[in-house]
Amino acid sequence: MSQHITLSIDAMGGDNAPNMVVEGMDMALRDLPGTKFILFGRSEQLVPLLEKFPKLSANVDLRHTDDTVSNDEKPGIALRSGRQSSMRKAINAVGEHEADGVVSAGNTGALMAMAKFVLKTLPGIDRPAIASLLPTMRGESVMLDLGANIQCDAENLVQFAVMGEVFARNVLHIEKPSIGILNVGTEVLKGNDSVKQAAAILSETKLPIDFYGFVEGDDIGKGTVDVIVTDGFTGNVALKTVEGTAKLFAGALKQELMKSLPGKIGALVAKPAIDAFRSRFDPRRYNGAMFLGLGGICIKSHGGTDALGFCYAIKVAHELVKDQLNEGIKEDYARFSSEHHSIPLIAAED
Amino acid sequence: MSQHITLSIDAMGGDNAPNMVVEGMDMALRDLPGTKFILFGRSEQLVPLLEKFPKLSANVDLRHTDDTVSNDEKPGIALRSGRQSSMRKAINAVGEHEADGVVSAGNTGALMAMAKFVLKTLPGIDRPAIASLLPTMRGESVMLDLGANIQCDAENLVQFAVMGEVFARNVLHIEKPSIGILNVGTEVLKGNDSVKQAAAILSETKLPIDFYGFVEGDDIGKGTVDVIVTDGFTGNVALKTVEGTAKLFAGALKQELMKSLPGKIGALVAKPAIDAFRSRFDPRRYNGAMFLGLGGICIKSHGGTDALGFCYAIKVAHELVKDQLNEGIKEDYARFSSEHHSIPLIAAED
Repeated sequence: MSQHITLSIDAMGGDNAPNMVVEGMDMALRDLPGTKFILFGRSEQLVPLLEKFPKLSANVDLRHTDDTVSNDEKPGIALRSGRQSSMRKAINAVGEHEADGVVSAGNTGALMAMAKFVLKTLPGIDRPAIASLLPTMRGESVMLDLGANIQCDAENLVQFAVMGEVFARNVLHIEKPSIGILNVGTEVLKGNDSVKQAAAILSETKLPIDFYGFVEGDDIGKGTVDVIVTDGFTGNVALKTVEGTAKLFAGALKQELMKSLPGKIGALVAKPAIDAFRSRFDPRRYNGAMFLGLGGICIKSHGGTDALGFCYAIKVAHELVKDQLNEGIKEDYARFSSEHHSIPLIAAED
Repeated sequence: MSQHITLSIDAMGGDNAPNMVVEGMDMALRDLPGTKFILFGRSEQLVPLLEKFPKLSANVDLRHTDDTVSNDEKPGIALRSGRQSSMRKAINAVGEHEADGVVSAGNTGALMAMAKFVLKTLPGIDRPAIASLLPTMRGESVMLDLGANIQCDAENLVQFAVMGEVFARNVLHIEKPSIGILNVGTEVLKGNDSVKQAAAILSETKLPIDFYGFVEGDDIGKGTVDVIVTDGFTGNVALKTVEGTAKLFAGALKQELMKSLPGKIGALVAKPAIDAFRSRFDPRRYNGAMFLGLGGICIKSHGGTDALGFCYAIKVAHELVKDQLNEGIKEDYARFSSEHHSIPLIAAED
């Protein structure tokens, strides 16, 4: 890591790019003074935008490229034909140690494919996972995988557990994070083979990991565990279900309040409290999904976010660089692997 | 169906049984006059309870049995050794055409195993599914499967789609219900083999089914489709995630409002609106999961519910009997099967 943290930014990814990207960078810089940016994208669009933010401009190294990755591009195609894209060049900057981390609001599959190709996976990790923080009754939990791996075996889930544990310890600063595997019930006999075997492995490990066991969908909101481990299919559905339910609730509350005069007056009087409630669950605050298990920090911003959301994604990247997340994963995974391979995997099956 | 609708009730299932069961029956009877009940359970507990509700008692045929199914009993064991249980006897009453439907708040796995054994599946249905209504921005949608089938192939999902469609038409009274398959993205290439193949089959069918395509987790709350089809693992996690997020939100809203005087005053002024909001998402209103695809109406109440929740589960059973759901499923499935088997399944694979 250089003295100042340098982040490379894909200016062209996301529905409202590049405007929200540049504005989000400016917001982030105010809270993270000293941060340097390398910005990749079309200079004819970016130069006039940057002129509006002189303080930001002084900390931006603009690199022109015409090519972009579209949202419907298949990952494999993007990987082969997108070598000159803003996304790929932003990732390359991390691979070439010019930047400490990369942020993009572009095509998730393409970003993962390119990041995996350029940054490689950490030793012992077969497949990187997408992780995100979620609000809970107790604070925040981290859930992974959120869509990078549609089908997962027990070994994948165990790797996610270790990555999530290191993340919670190094970034959420929880001394001994608890880990749960998402399932349809809490009894050991419930679920598919992958979750049952992964639970058996994690129960038997001698590593100082606090394995809670199985958790269910409602445990996400309760904050029963600090780390929720699941396959990418289930995790993606669960994450988006949280988002959808949040929107449904916020909309319905507003609707009911606006239906009557007492409702309107009450809402006006309680506005600071209602605003605090809304802000607590503002999806922009939880923007910035982390690609864990790669040889570099890579953050995926929601494609539909605005400047504030992109600012939060930048902050996540900054935090992971600052906390040296990958060093932690490497060390812990090495310890875990040597321990783990002494466990007879066959004992987990029956 | 007899002139009056008769429901058989397992008095002993659920955390607060039999009190909440009997009280819930009394509540339901007030809204559904003329309903008859056959109540199975321990008469020494039930007789004194029924004495409190003379109007209900006049409509209850009490059948004593000592045996009950515990919550941690494995389905196979319950099936073999629970022949004298209140749950099994309540199901038998439907199998023997004494009752038109059964309601139990007991062990889900045992209830499904017993109901499948006694009531059999409908022609053309390999596996019954658990379905439930969910609140959405547009009203209500039905989602299935919610946990009966942990691993599902394309054929299972197609059967769920047909059952869900018939349900939405006959019970939600939607003329042409739209059907979506829950996935991690809306593009045809996303997801696992089961969802991709099921989508291909449903896209190609000539039946008058309104197949929307894939939906994501946030489409549940949006109400994008009337019927959400998914495997039992994903569906169970999604349903409980909705419940957990709802609780998290309700709790956090209350917390923020009670933190300050203006919040408290605003909440008091807007109380009717906030109560309307709370009632709209009261989980008890959505109690009563339906076992679809069986040769009889079987409703599973949440184990932890109270009398009001159990009352709603009874109402669901009553509604399904009244709307002759199973006749609809049988007819539609027969039509679909003859059509469906002319579709080359192999075309769906690639």
